[in-house]
Order: sequence, then C-alpha cells, then structure tokens
Amino acid sequence: MKLMRIGQPGAEKPALLDRDGKVRDLSAHVADIGGAHLSPEGLARIAALDPASLPEIAADRIGPCVAGTGKFICIGLNYSDHAAESGMAVPPEPVVFMKATSAICGPNDTVYIPRGSEKTDWEVELGVVIGKTAKYVSEAEALDYVAGYCVSHDVSERAFQTERAGQWTKGKSCDTFGPVGPWLVTRDEIPDPQALSMWLKVNGEQMQNGSSQTMVYGVAFLVSYLSQFMSLHPGDIISTGTPPGVGMGMKPPRYLKPGDVVELGIEGLGTQRQVFAADL
Amino acid sequence: MKLMRIGQPGAEKPALLDRDGKVRDLSAHVADIGGAHLSPEGLARIAALDPASLPEIAADRIGPCVAGTGKFICIGLNYSDHAAESGMAVPPEPVVFMKATSAICGPNDTVYIPRGSEKTDWEVELGVVIGKTAKYVSEAEALDYVAGYCVSHDVSERAFQTERAGQWTKGKSCDTFGPVGPWLVTRDEIPDPQALSMWLKVNGEQMQNGSSQTMVYGVAFLVSYLSQFMSLHPGDIISTGTPPGVGMGMKPPRYLKPGDVVELGIEGLGTQRQVFAADL
Repeated sequence: MKLMRIGQPGAEKPALLDRDGKVRDLSAHVADIGGAHLSPEGLARIAALDPASLPEIAADRIGPCVAGTGKFICIGLNYSDHAAESGMAVPPEPVVFMKATSAICGPNDTVYIPRGSEKTDWEVELGVVIGKTAKYVSEAEALDYVAGYCVSHDVSERAFQTERAGQWTKGKSCDTFGPVGPWLVTRDEIPDPQALSMWLKVNGEQMQNGSSQTMVYGVAFLVSYLSQFMSLHPGDIISTGTPPGVGMGMKPPRYLKPGDVVELGIEGLGTQRQVFAADL
Repeated sequence: MKLMRIGQPGAEKPALLDRDGKVRDLSAHVADIGGAHLSPEGLARIAALDPASLPEIAADRIGPCVAGTGKFICIGLNYSDHAAESGMAVPPEPVVFMKATSAICGPNDTVYIPRGSEKTDWEVELGVVIGKTAKYVSEAEALDYVAGYCVSHDVSERAFQTERAGQWTKGKSCDTFGPVGPWLVTRDEIPDPQALSMWLKVNGEQMQNGSSQTMVYGVAFLVSYLSQFMSLHPGDIISTGTPPGVGMGMKPPRYLKPGDVVELGIEGLGTQRQVFAADL
C-alpha cells in the first residue's frame, strides 16, 4: 500500500493511493497515518478495505506521510562514496544524530533557507518508518518492526552543521529541512530495501544518482543497532544516509539559493519537488 | 505556580502544588500540562483558579512535568569548570545536541542502565520549558517565550557518547535517561534563572554543587540562539548543561551501577531521586 496524508499543515487527512493513481480518503477508518495504525495489525485493517469503496479526494497538498513522529534519527556517512566526497572516513559503526521533528514537512512544500545560511545543501535518503516498538531487537528480526519506507530529503546547512561548534544538529534541524513522502510505502511492496535506485536533480541537472545497494550499514542492521541504544516507537523515522553527489562534495562546492528547484526520488517510493526560498 | 503531572506513565493527570504542599487536580480545567496551556494566556487561566477549590489528589507517582515535548535540546560544555573536567575547551558558541524525547521519564522513576553500559554518568541541569513558539527572537525578548523551569537529569553513557563513532546522541537518548520534574515552576517564580544553586548526590555523597551563575551561555542567550536555527515550540525542553562533578571527570572516573541512588535538586525547582537498575 501507498499511504499518504492530504490537506493543509496540521489538518491532513489519512489517504491511500490506489492502483489507478487515485487518492482515496481513509479518514472514516483511521484517525491518521501514525501510531497504532502502523502496526502489522493496523496496516492489515487498512489493507482489508476495498479502495473503490473509499471517497476519492483531490491531492491539493501532500503532507508528510507519517504523523506523530517522535524521533527523526539520521545516519551519517552511510555510503562509502559520500564519506569520501565529504573528506571523512567510513565510520567503524553507524554515526547517529537527530534531526528536529519540527523540521518535518510535506514532500513538495517550500523549503526555507534560514537567515544567515550560505551553505544549504541537498541529500536524498531512504526513510524507514517504524511500525511497532523495537528494543534490543536482532538484525534477523529487525524488519518486522518496520512499517514501510519513504523518500526523505535530509536538507543540511553545512556551515551550521560543521563550522559552528560541534555536533551536527544545528545544521540539520531548521524548519522545513525534513520533507518526507509523498507516500509511506508498506514493507510488503519493497522486498529488498537494499536494491533501490535513488536520484536528485537541482534545476533539472542530475546531482545524485545512487542505489541503496551501496549503503555501508543496511536497514535491518540499523534498526537493530539503534534499538540497542533506545526504544524505537511507531512513527519514528530513520533517514539512512545519502549517496554521493551533494553540493558540499563538488569542486568548488555548490549550494542552494532562493528560486532553486530540487527534485528527488527513490525507486517505488515516489518523488518530491521543492522550491527553495529565503526565510524572511 | 508549581505545575506537575500525577499518575502512571501515559495516564498522568495535570495538577498543581499549592502553597501548603498539597497536590491539586487540574484535570477539570486543562487537558494536560503542555501545548497551548503553557502560553502566557494558558498559564494565566490556571493562575486564576482558587487552589482550594481543586480536589486534592495523592501524588502516587510523579510524571515528567510537561507533556508533548517535541524537542529535548541539550547544551554541551556550558559550564567552564565542567568543560575543564571533561578535558574539552569552552566552545566559542553553544554546543547543541538532541536527547530523544522517548528518554523522558518522571523525576523519581527507576533509571535503567542499558545493556552493555559500563559508563553511565549523572548530570544535574536546569531545564527550560518553552511556552510559545519562538523563531528568530532576540536575547532581550527571549524569556517571554519561556513558560518556566524544571530540574532535568541529563543521564549520559560516556562510552556510547564519545567512544562509539561520532555525535553524542547515542549516549544521551537511552530510555529513562531524561528524568524531568517534579515541577514546572512558572517563570514568575524564578526572577533570575542565572542565580540558582544546584546539587547532586550519589548514595548520599555530594558529587555536584554548583550554580547556574557560572553558565557560559545563559538562558536568554540560549533561547535566542537556538531560535536562529529552528522554531522552538510549546513543551520543548532545553537542558542547559551541567556544572562540575560528573563521574567522567573524577580520577579515576566513577560510574553508576545497579542499586545506586542518585538525588539531585535545584533551588526553587524541587528534587529528584532515582534508583538505578540493570536493563535486563
């Protein structure tokens, strides 16, 4: 299934995309795409509905594909080629940092370049949405705790991230720096999360062109690994790192400016398109 | 006012502590201590109630003093003496990292030492609770966005934090590593947040004995500073760093083990007491 949230920010309705590409209103059946509805049982209840019986609605604005995200966990330097272009070594175990959940926005919302920013950069990433609480889970069972996958754009301000006194959070958490969606694609539709092509364009020019195949630490490992440190809860999102081709890695580096258009996508998970604007 | 939340985890009722030390049930008047109830107007509505008219309830378990925290933002190395004992320099601007909101627990709840931990440490900190959305606010107006203050225990696993591949999140976000409370003390009761004594004991032995007076970056500066990077929302907590005396700074270092009892407090904000236990 492709689950989504339609409507203005804070007032999104749960919906699904049917096989004909029509958006169907789920609000008579679930309160939102989040929480207990992401459990295997919750998803099974939605899957049992006949899409044709659900009212069609206009996808005027697509919201983030999951509600109530408590943690937006990111993995750094998780593609060996991206680590190389960043001038950093592949880490001996996953580098983990948090993006503020207040950065989450819809996949096609305007992204605001914060005041004082000169190094706003792009990063297409595979997002993993947790479906049930995971703590101390093994790698073998880890995917049982995954509700599904989505496109995640880990927008990053490189000066805030690395030139402003330790820890990356400041460059990762700005408002609108976390477009997620358009869809939460349930796990059954993605038999192998380590074989998804992914790409990103700036003003039509291809910048990133990679595959989740070259991740250093794969999805099952990451879910297991993170669950050794903290409980993962339904609706938590793990953004699993970006392949090569970010602006910081170019010679000379290239960063986003107001008016730039970024398009990105992952095989089977849909596409995003953001216009970047100054945060006045 | 001293606002608190009473009841079992996930089922806490809003309450206030009256001048006689009685806990009064607020649930007929506010849904919870969080969100819009933390705004100046929301707090004024609570302040207008006659405490004697509210039912007295037993404080069987005290929950975290604020609900719906979206961000649990921490400031690192914010006391010059603590930076020195950590062997790190005072940063040229605040070091910012996130603690998972899933780490939040009540002030007297059991704290679980995670599997594999050998370096679980203590940190008494002044917590700042945001009352209304703050973005690009000046230092002069910053305190207007603060609902109040609380004791925050930034429990930290030092090996996870600093020996396990970059970024501190892994050592800060373990379940129960974030006791907050007992009370959210509203701003009007704390005329100067930079003049609060604070202390922490392990098994009755005094380990930390400091004052918010020696913070490098004060509360108003921090609220303004953080709001340049991201919107702060009602219920967000800023944990503002710890004074000297953590276990990591001792020679030899000293860490917590199952059965240890940690007590801590801040002038005017109450005390916490946690028994540490193995996370089996």
